[in-house]
Amino acid sequence: MDFASLLGIISGLALIISAIFLGGNADVFLNVPGLMIVAGGTIAATLLTVQFKDVLNAFKAAWIVFTRDNTNPQEMIDTMLELSRVSHRHGLLKLGDVESDSHVLKRACNLLSEAASEQVIRNTLQNEIDSLIARHHSVQDVFRKMAAYAPAFGMLGTLIGLIQMLSQLSNPETIGPAMAVALLTTFYGSLLATMMFLPIAGKLHARTLTEVTNLEIIREGCISILTNDHYMHVYEQLASYLPEAQRKPIKIGRKQQQPPAAKPAAKAAANPVKERA
Amino acid sequence: MDFASLLGIISGLALIISAIFLGGNADVFLNVPGLMIVAGGTIAATLLTVQFKDVLNAFKAAWIVFTRDNTNPQEMIDTMLELSRVSHRHGLLKLGDVESDSHVLKRACNLLSEAASEQVIRNTLQNEIDSLIARHHSVQDVFRKMAAYAPAFGMLGTLIGLIQMLSQLSNPETIGPAMAVALLTTFYGSLLATMMFLPIAGKLHARTLTEVTNLEIIREGCISILTNDHYMHVYEQLASYLPEAQRKPIKIGRKQQQPPAAKPAAKAAANPVKERA
Amino acid sequence: MDFASLLGIISGLALIISAIFLGGNADVFLNVPGLMIVAGGTIAATLLTVQFKDVLNAFKAAWIVFTRDNTNPQEMIDTMLELSRVSHRHGLLKLGDVESDSHVLKRACNLLSEAASEQVIRNTLQNEIDSLIARHHSVQDVFRKMAAYAPAFGMLGTLIGLIQMLSQLSNPETIGPAMAVALLTTFYGSLLATMMFLPIAGKLHARTLTEVTNLEIIREGCISILTNDHYMHVYEQLASYLPEAQRKPIKIGRKQQQPPAAKPAAKAAANPVKERA
Amino acid sequence: MDFASLLGIISGLALIISAIFLGGNADVFLNVPGLMIVAGGTIAATLLTVQFKDVLNAFKAAWIVFTRDNTNPQEMIDTMLELSRVSHRHGLLKLGDVESDSHVLKRACNLLSEAASEQVIRNTLQNEIDSLIARHHSVQDVFRKMAAYAPAFGMLGTLIGLIQMLSQLSNPETIGPAMAVALLTTFYGSLLATMMFLPIAGKLHARTLTEVTNLEIIREGCISILTNDHYMHVYEQLASYLPEAQRKPIKIGRKQQQPPAAKPAAKAAANPVKERA
Amino acid sequence: MDFASLLGIISGLALIISAIFLGGNADVFLNVPGLMIVAGGTIAATLLTVQFKDVLNAFKAAWIVFTRDNTNPQEMIDTMLELSRVSHRHGLLKLGDVESDSHVLKRACNLLSEAASEQVIRNTLQNEIDSLIARHHSVQDVFRKMAAYAPAFGMLGTLIGLIQMLSQLSNPETIGPAMAVALLTTFYGSLLATMMFLPIAGKLHARTLTEVTNLEIIREGCISILTNDHYMHVYEQLASYLPEAQRKPIKIGRKQQQPPAAKPAAKAAANPVKERA
Repeated sequence: MDFASLLGIISGLALIISAIFLGGNADVFLNVPGLMIVAGGTIAATLLTVQFKDVLNAFKAAWIVFTRDNTNPQEMIDTMLELSRVSHRHGLLKLGDVESDSHVLKRACNLLSEAASEQVIRNTLQNEIDSLIARHHSVQDVFRKMAAYAPAFGMLGTLIGLIQMLSQLSNPETIGPAMAVALLTTFYGSLLATMMFLPIAGKLHARTLTEVTNLEIIREGCISILTNDHYMHVYEQLASYLPEAQRKPIKIGRKQQQPPAAKPAAKAAANPVKERA
Repeated sequence: MDFASLLGIISGLALIISAIFLGGNADVFLNVPGLMIVAGGTIAATLLTVQFKDVLNAFKAAWIVFTRDNTNPQEMIDTMLELSRVSHRHGLLKLGDVESDSHVLKRACNLLSEAASEQVIRNTLQNEIDSLIARHHSVQDVFRKMAAYAPAFGMLGTLIGLIQMLSQLSNPETIGPAMAVALLTTFYGSLLATMMFLPIAGKLHARTLTEVTNLEIIREGCISILTNDHYMHVYEQLASYLPEAQRKPIKIGRKQQQPPAAKPAAKAAANPVKERA
Repeated sequence: MDFASLLGIISGLALIISAIFLGGNADVFLNVPGLMIVAGGTIAATLLTVQFKDVLNAFKAAWIVFTRDNTNPQEMIDTMLELSRVSHRHGLLKLGDVESDSHVLKRACNLLSEAASEQVIRNTLQNEIDSLIARHHSVQDVFRKMAAYAPAFGMLGTLIGLIQMLSQLSNPETIGPAMAVALLTTFYGSLLATMMFLPIAGKLHARTLTEVTNLEIIREGCISILTNDHYMHVYEQLASYLPEAQRKPIKIGRKQQQPPAAKPAAKAAANPVKERA
Repeated sequence: MDFASLLGIISGLALIISAIFLGGNADVFLNVPGLMIVAGGTIAATLLTVQFKDVLNAFKAAWIVFTRDNTNPQEMIDTMLELSRVSHRHGLLKLGDVESDSHVLKRACNLLSEAASEQVIRNTLQNEIDSLIARHHSVQDVFRKMAAYAPAFGMLGTLIGLIQMLSQLSNPETIGPAMAVALLTTFYGSLLATMMFLPIAGKLHARTLTEVTNLEIIREGCISILTNDHYMHVYEQLASYLPEAQRKPIKIGRKQQQPPAAKPAAKAAANPVKERA
Repeated sequence: MDFASLLGIISGLALIISAIFLGGNADVFLNVPGLMIVAGGTIAATLLTVQFKDVLNAFKAAWIVFTRDNTNPQEMIDTMLELSRVSHRHGLLKLGDVESDSHVLKRACNLLSEAASEQVIRNTLQNEIDSLIARHHSVQDVFRKMAAYAPAFGMLGTLIGLIQMLSQLSNPETIGPAMAVALLTTFYGSLLATMMFLPIAGKLHARTLTEVTNLEIIREGCISILTNDHYMHVYEQLASYLPEAQRKPIKIGRKQQQPPAAKPAAKAAANPVKERA
């Protein structure tokens, strides 16, 4: 799990829980029926709104995004530069042997080794990018819808509580506690939306942007390789996907014979070439 | 009716109803005039906003979406692969004999068998996609407008109740019950929007996305068939519409002589060819 | 006036009025100064926001949309098919004689009879579509702005009433009626927005969509006529603007000699041809 | 100042002020510290949000839009027709002598007289349109941001007042007046947003649309002139920017020798030609 | 720090603080647990939503935007004109020697000196613009998310306070102060969003627009230089990025021999040429 998420979830929960315990009796904040209306209602409305497999996919995606790291653009650029070097020394055909975790990178290498035209490579990879965006979007949408349903069910629960309380105004002393209970569902709904559904939707969105950048680096890199661009030119082309501070000047000449240790992500692409060459 | 919707509607209603009964007297939650203001007002404003036939279409579409299954993209890809196989063995002309439930697939096959140009096929199918999106959008819009009107009429009903109560503050003991009644319309409006109109609009939107994907698979598949792509190439082209996990490797060779039992949706396209071949 | 609007406005008002009368003294709901703040303020802010002629145009457009029917796409397709038949029998030149209520259709026929190029026809009609959308949009905008201003002035009126009441808390018995009066402007504002401005804006938007579809049918039909497409081909091209259920199979052959009675909207285009042919 | 704005501002203020005076003591509505929190806070946050020169530009633009008339599209079309006539009689070179208030029209005429290509003219004028939209957008944005900040500071002021009142609940009799004062800032914030910032933003937006239409008329007119279109053809091309009701049939022949008195805006363009011809 | 921001932050804080002190006891507005819930919760949820490095980048960007000036478009146009002059006198090759703070300008000059094609220059610079927009957008997004989370945690804190108060309604005299404390978190949340997060997000957005304009000036200027446009023509092309009032007429002839003192930003580009020429 990435450090920021862990820190965020622990500190966030700690703050809320300590605020509850500081106020004295914390058991007033636990109300199982209220919790069921909000959590259950949110899930029920979400099942009605989207397809069942989308809900499963959404939770699977949320699990992945918080536990698995993704390739960052810098590593992907290193991989593409390695591929460019391989192509220059051994020809495009050699790229067909490249092994990679990334399904798309492998497919792009196959297309390069088959000498596909620039148009075909561009279309194929753009297609992958478009459908990745579409698929990820529908997953994020599940959490965005949950973030909208949770406060709505919180308000419905509060309305039910208020109506029940107001219709039985026999004993004025019970008004306070009854209203406290009624407000609890609003609290649950807001808490779920603010601390759970919105952050997950945001994290998934950020992850999508990174993956799209990676695919775009693959696309531009492959086209540079195909048009047999110079090593340095490929880097310059791809470096515009990085913020200026992270771009590093590339030295040509002696350094090229002693390439710096390839970064982890580049190994997948670099190793097979070495082994089989 | 699909399982998720059934589960969602039953669990959602069960939660709300049990919350109402847990609080004691449930009959306070039934108020026919209040229900009429919210439901009637929502329908009245919707009739004013859209055309009558759009309202009818919207309810018909909602009925269809919850009762009828739609072709999933995997089946549509299988169908297109089957068509690709037919075209390779018997020529494009044979595609004119294909029968299918899908109006668009039939039309695309006719265009293929008439040897229409790639441009014509692309335009025709893109046109179908665009007008399908436009028509579906106006149907979803009806439910989105209802989801906006219902809480507005809920608030109007509550305002009417509050104004009546406040203008007759003779007996302080009636304030509670009167406010309970006034709040009921807000409750009705939120409940209708959250448990009915928003989920239906969402489901229709999700269904539209699936249908658009299917039409795009038809479009890309037909163009691949027209340009006489290899069976495996067609699959790779179309597989980008599926999430990575659902893509299956395609074996070439022996397997092709013993194709796995075509999936149900593919039968419509596959059968006539076998029968007539 | 179309039936749905009439039904909507009558049932909506009946519901609100009966809810007011059911609660006892209805005269508490009439407050002329409050009504003036909301209605007057909304109009004043609208005059400040848009140009005077846009306000006039908006009300004129609202009047037209509720009283005059518009050509539905089915009739427009029939008209275009009729024109296609005329062009096949008598040549493009004959289209110059066509008379029609629609300014755009007449202009398109003139362009056809002048043997304008496809590019010119497409540009000219696309220009008409774009500027129709822009003009209609600014008209809808007036009502959308009114729908936003009305509740805002309702809230301002309520704030004025509340501040006046709270600053003179001499007699606690007057609190109730004073708050009732203060809430009235909120009620007026919401009612105006929900039952008047939003439905009109929605109806205008729906009408715009239909008109755009009609213009697109004219555009595509004219280009089909120009490229001398077959009668059946023209129909197929245009039918994608209709939902699948409304498309009718076209028979070729005998039927063509005895065309079904042209629909009313088609008459304008069809008649002059017969008379002069 | 245009009549609608004047009417709007006078009637709006009259309504609000009369509502305040009708309620008795009007001096309760004047609270200088509250006014300073709302107006001052709004300006402070706006200065933090945008650049200083944008704030100045915004107020300058607001002053211009309410005091200076802008060329309406009808007049701009007349001007372009006049230019078309000049070009037909005296050649494109003569257009270089045209004088006009509009910087863009003058530049377009220079390009025409220099026999620039259609592509150059289209790009140059499209560039002007795009950057005009961008510049105007950032000016409108200032007022839109103010319309968002004003109610926010109103609420902050009310929260400050409520917290102060609630923490000193010694004397229940002061609750009413204290809450009245607290609510005042909410009133100020809503009033400023509804009667000042939103209308100004809306007016600026409407003005931008008109100016863009004018520039588009210049662009299309210049291209028509360049391709040496017929006078009537130029009119038809440009008339699609007008609503159908305002388009007037153009007579060719005798009328052309006695052109109707050019409209004021057209004079700038028409006069120099007469003087120098 | 720019003057407007300084003025804004000082006057805004002064207004809020004086409003607090005018109301008497100011210490009621300091509540450390409440502040921790709002500020801590906002940071926690933001860490959960975005990646850690994005949060760091966001605060770094906010620091830069308030402390460092950016090149204004006028200066960038002067720089491009200077480059145009250099290219006319010494040839495109000389542009390779230009030194500049701007990474993009330097790269563009290198491309020009390498005689890259117009297409390559346009693509490369457009790529830089697109990825700059994408990177800046994700930074602004951090503050926009914070501006949404802060009021949400303010409301959560208020709900916690209200529920605690209502469940212990033993002593009616404590209601006031307890509610004051509960409202404090809402106050903190709104204050943070309105005076801090929204202005920073707005300022970053404004800065992005200026930088994009600068890059577009570089792009258009380089293409004008490449196509060997006249000095005056380059200016006219670029001047459309400025509001009309700031454009200055360019005199040709004598003035060109005595160019006005180059503006500071232009020095970087102009100096090396003089030194090495």
